[in-house]
Amino acid sequence: MNMQKITQFINRNKLFSQKDKILVALSGGADSVALLRLLLALGYTCEAAHCNFHLRGTESDRDETFVRNLCKTLQIPLYIIHFSTEKEAKKRHVSIEMAARTLRYEWFEKMRKECDAGVIAIAHHQDDSVETLLLNLIRGTGINGLQGIRPINGKIVRPLLCLGRKEIIEYLESIGQEYVTDSTNFQDEYTRNKIRLNLLPMMQEINPSIKESILRTAGYLNDVSIIYNKGIEEAKRHILTEKGIDINLLLQEPAPETLLFEILYPLGFNTSQIKDIYQALDSQSGKIFTSAEWRIAKDRKLLLIQSKQEPHKPILEMREYNYTPEFIIPQDKKTACFDADKISNPLSLRLWKQGDSFIPFGMTGRKKISDYLTNCKYSIFQKEEQWVLCCGEDIIWLVEERTDNRFRIDEKTKKVLIVTCKR
Amino acid sequence: MNMQKITQFINRNKLFSQKDKILVALSGGADSVALLRLLLALGYTCEAAHCNFHLRGTESDRDETFVRNLCKTLQIPLYIIHFSTEKEAKKRHVSIEMAARTLRYEWFEKMRKECDAGVIAIAHHQDDSVETLLLNLIRGTGINGLQGIRPINGKIVRPLLCLGRKEIIEYLESIGQEYVTDSTNFQDEYTRNKIRLNLLPMMQEINPSIKESILRTAGYLNDVSIIYNKGIEEAKRHILTEKGIDINLLLQEPAPETLLFEILYPLGFNTSQIKDIYQALDSQSGKIFTSAEWRIAKDRKLLLIQSKQEPHKPILEMREYNYTPEFIIPQDKKTACFDADKISNPLSLRLWKQGDSFIPFGMTGRKKISDYLTNCKYSIFQKEEQWVLCCGEDIIWLVEERTDNRFRIDEKTKKVLIVTCKR
Repeated sequence: MNMQKITQFINRNKLFSQKDKILVALSGGADSVALLRLLLALGYTCEAAHCNFHLRGTESDRDETFVRNLCKTLQIPLYIIHFSTEKEAKKRHVSIEMAARTLRYEWFEKMRKECDAGVIAIAHHQDDSVETLLLNLIRGTGINGLQGIRPINGKIVRPLLCLGRKEIIEYLESIGQEYVTDSTNFQDEYTRNKIRLNLLPMMQEINPSIKESILRTAGYLNDVSIIYNKGIEEAKRHILTEKGIDINLLLQEPAPETLLFEILYPLGFNTSQIKDIYQALDSQSGKIFTSAEWRIAKDRKLLLIQSKQEPHKPILEMREYNYTPEFIIPQDKKTACFDADKISNPLSLRLWKQGDSFIPFGMTGRKKISDYLTNCKYSIFQKEEQWVLCCGEDIIWLVEERTDNRFRIDEKTKKVLIVTCKR
Repeated sequence: MNMQKITQFINRNKLFSQKDKILVALSGGADSVALLRLLLALGYTCEAAHCNFHLRGTESDRDETFVRNLCKTLQIPLYIIHFSTEKEAKKRHVSIEMAARTLRYEWFEKMRKECDAGVIAIAHHQDDSVETLLLNLIRGTGINGLQGIRPINGKIVRPLLCLGRKEIIEYLESIGQEYVTDSTNFQDEYTRNKIRLNLLPMMQEINPSIKESILRTAGYLNDVSIIYNKGIEEAKRHILTEKGIDINLLLQEPAPETLLFEILYPLGFNTSQIKDIYQALDSQSGKIFTSAEWRIAKDRKLLLIQSKQEPHKPILEMREYNYTPEFIIPQDKKTACFDADKISNPLSLRLWKQGDSFIPFGMTGRKKISDYLTNCKYSIFQKEEQWVLCCGEDIIWLVEERTDNRFRIDEKTKKVLIVTCKR
């Protein structure tokens, strides 16, 4: 084993330093056992963590016993956890595979903090990386899925990504180290085996150094994605306004649909929704699309983006004054004044609804609230958040916008009701 | 056959318009025959072009006869050319496959101009695109190789990229149109057959809609590459100076090695050279790398890039004057003045060479030309282009830089030799 290759890989990718404690994820299989032995041989301080998922009957317990003995021999601390994986999967409504992965990484991170380790080391190697890339390609992917497995991701590091499966097995044989063998128990593993045992050998017939080729492509695409992501971030800064996306600016960008995707996908919109939203760009305003937490509306010049939180109910403060000639009617929109004697019914605050109408201050005819708001050039989302203050059935104030003419102060007014919006 | 799908594809990708004449590349195989029939059915004006490569004995002639008859029946003009492909391959030192491709596209373009067609239509379809992507992935590729076949490339258009092989065969059967079948004769075709017949079916077992997946990935990567290329162009503008690449700015970029690759690869440097150049960035100055037409040198702060053209020999103009007290010695570097009587040997102009030395004007000691140029902070390439004017063995002028003290004008000078550099 060329130990220097591993040290170089660790240093070049800044995985960790000699003074970091490393928590090694130890299944007992060849890869993780080799990882532990290699890191110890290189003089790093290691502790180990083992998950018993109880998915393979006695085999699960055999593995646990094996890692217990191994860590005793190597004299390193070992943490073990038992999961009721099937139960957890049901509880979380996910596949057993997904549940196992989540449980595993959650617990590793918890243990990392508890034992004060700098990083969690996982034993993925080059063959895993090649297989992951092919698996993603087959299932359909973007630029991220074609970069293989990355050496570092937050606190997770993968020092063995500089080695192939064959080198790892040879190393274990050379030091006489045993390991356990997993019977396959995940669909994902089943597919990976197919890629490993059938697909890759077939590709190898066309190009004997297929793995090196794919790894080189993956590395190159990693750089491409860095430059791509920088481009996306710049374009986002260019087209995003406080309220949403400027449609004209978006359409002037070189790859508008993909840019839209990169903005909306993280907000929980799916591929087909984003396609629909893109096609709605040159249609009439008014269409609304929703994800779990966000809402999008095609407005005149903007694609409005809004959190789905309930419209915030304004807080109104009310005071009565005697009306004297010296009284000055406040001009700001936050305050409304009424003739208190005209308010004969109980007051209530609600969102406006279709069909609502009022007589705007200074006018004599009724006007529909919807028309009034459209004339104000309010966006769809602003319209939705319009509150009205009612006296019985009558709207007396389109809050923060305009009062109703019927409740205005006039020459006969004796008492003034002043309502202030404190939101 | 959903004809509207093809029209939409043609229009959306702006392949050509109804008034364009289309030159259809017609081999006689299913794809090109279907292409011709479909374009005619859609009302486009077509002419056809057929290459007989004489690579498959009587089969080549059978194909020619078939397309002759087909075009006669369809009443469209047909152009035919015969190539001595094997001979051409030898002459051009390329594979037969490469020769056939080059001959074909060169002739198509020539015929397109002659018959005044707007575009050349090639019958590549979706399965070709998927196979090309996989072939590139297996051989090793970058972002460009993962975009599949593009619908438009200059005057080449591919209207069938909206159809699969199966749809094309079904269409031909539905209209009762015959076609010829090629026996495989290219290595590339052999590999493609392997991908089509073995690899793709195996991938289909993992994902039944593998082709759609790959095509979607390819389309997405096309957008990624547009944004990536824009990013590369911006970075280039940022780090390129008139003389080469600013090393500090390069290293501050997010993916410096790939950026370097994108700049140097088009200049004919290969992957391993570019790796070496990248590693030389933090080494001592002086290393030089060459491609067929360019030279690169690591200088202090720059990676100098220069065309390999021979240094341009300056043109010197010489005149003699009587030296009078009114004579004003010109101060510009383009002009040098000598005491004509001191020039006793023939003059010659050459590039300086290691070991050369002279006595700089105003000094008494000898100085090596190499040290002198280094003190001037000349770049490696500027140094290489330094000419010297000699009188016999003595250097009398470091051209456009400094004259030699021994040949200077002094109180005894009677005649002045004025040399002007006219380059």
